[in-house]
Amino acid sequence: MTASLLEQLIDALRVLPGVGHKSAQRMAYHLLERQRDGGRRLAATLEAAMERVGHCRRCRDFSEAEVCAICASPARDIHLLCVVETPADRLAIEQATGYRGLYFVLQGRLSPLDGIGPAELGLDLLAQRLQEGEVRELIVATNPTVEGEATAHYLAQLARARGVRPSRLAHGVPLGGELEYVDRGTLSHAFGSRSEMQE
Amino acid sequence: MTASLLEQLIDALRVLPGVGHKSAQRMAYHLLERQRDGGRRLAATLEAAMERVGHCRRCRDFSEAEVCAICASPARDIHLLCVVETPADRLAIEQATGYRGLYFVLQGRLSPLDGIGPAELGLDLLAQRLQEGEVRELIVATNPTVEGEATAHYLAQLARARGVRPSRLAHGVPLGGELEYVDRGTLSHAFGSRSEMQE
Ligand SMILES: [Zn+2]
Ligand SMILES: [Zn+2]
Repeated sequence: MTASLLEQLIDALRVLPGVGHKSAQRMAYHLLERQRDGGRRLAATLEAAMERVGHCRRCRDFSEAEVCAICASPARDIHLLCVVETPADRLAIEQATGYRGLYFVLQGRLSPLDGIGPAELGLDLLAQRLQEGEVRELIVATNPTVEGEATAHYLAQLARARGVRPSRLAHGVPLGGELEYVDRGTLSHAFGSRSEMQE
Repeated sequence: MTASLLEQLIDALRVLPGVGHKSAQRMAYHLLERQRDGGRRLAATLEAAMERVGHCRRCRDFSEAEVCAICASPARDIHLLCVVETPADRLAIEQATGYRGLYFVLQGRLSPLDGIGPAELGLDLLAQRLQEGEVRELIVATNPTVEGEATAHYLAQLARARGVRPSRLAHGVPLGGELEYVDRGTLSHAFGSRSEMQE
């Protein structure tokens, strides 16, 4: 016997992070009982996003366009480039600080055991970008975890080899924490007191 | 400037119960980064469910078919009818107890202030069903809240007027609680020790 549409929906909702069977069931009932239009809109938006949201070819952040709004903006300072691990980190910095430079989104961090090396993080693209000569400071905003620090070290070398000054967010971001969850005040302070990275 | 598809997706996800902006953002990033196929499947299932899941014309529970699988099953005892407020309550009883009778889903409870009266709960359909003469016991499993108790009282009168014996779940279900959240053991016990309702 095939599963009913309701059962299929409950199962499909579990693809969402942090949603177990019980939550999925509540969500399905809620949509069917009270939010059919919202559910239809979610279905349509989800389908469009899964198909059409790709990556900016300049910064690798999510973007529908070939080049994202930030990379395409003439108002941003092209001499500053901030490297983050994820789109959520980029958003956190954009919302918490007054930063007006550009970004580069790794979509991960160096993790040899998981097979994630420089190629997977687009570091060839980043190296080429630094080679172009416009970037003066590379703000390395990877997370203060073991892998994030190793990635930061690698990025600093990459920058120095091309005459670009690497800097790192000031302490204030709790060690072992995830940037995405740091409160705005702390993040803003840490961003403002970033220091040049020493060899 | 129109919102990006990513922003639209984050906004659309907030239709889900208990999902605020931050959770919606995490969900959107998670799907885009790691679950494109799961996201597509969710979109398709959601669309199909919103369009095609209706109500069983016998019991008012959610169903794609005109008559749901439980109502259509020849293995169920047609002399027992259990009335619940919501599909989630029906599922909780089905999973926690050995009940083999049929159900009737009110999709709500009497709440005159909200304009929910007997018609909104399909009580004409229920009265007609009791009139048919097959049902011998009406198990009233509305929630033990003020409105649930008032609904139970109304249902008991409806049953007695048609020569059907009304019963109510035994105490054990915490007062003021929601059936859906009661642990299986308690619910199973309460269901087993249901007692006839007195006038
Ligand atoms: Zn970009
Ligand atoms: Zn049914």
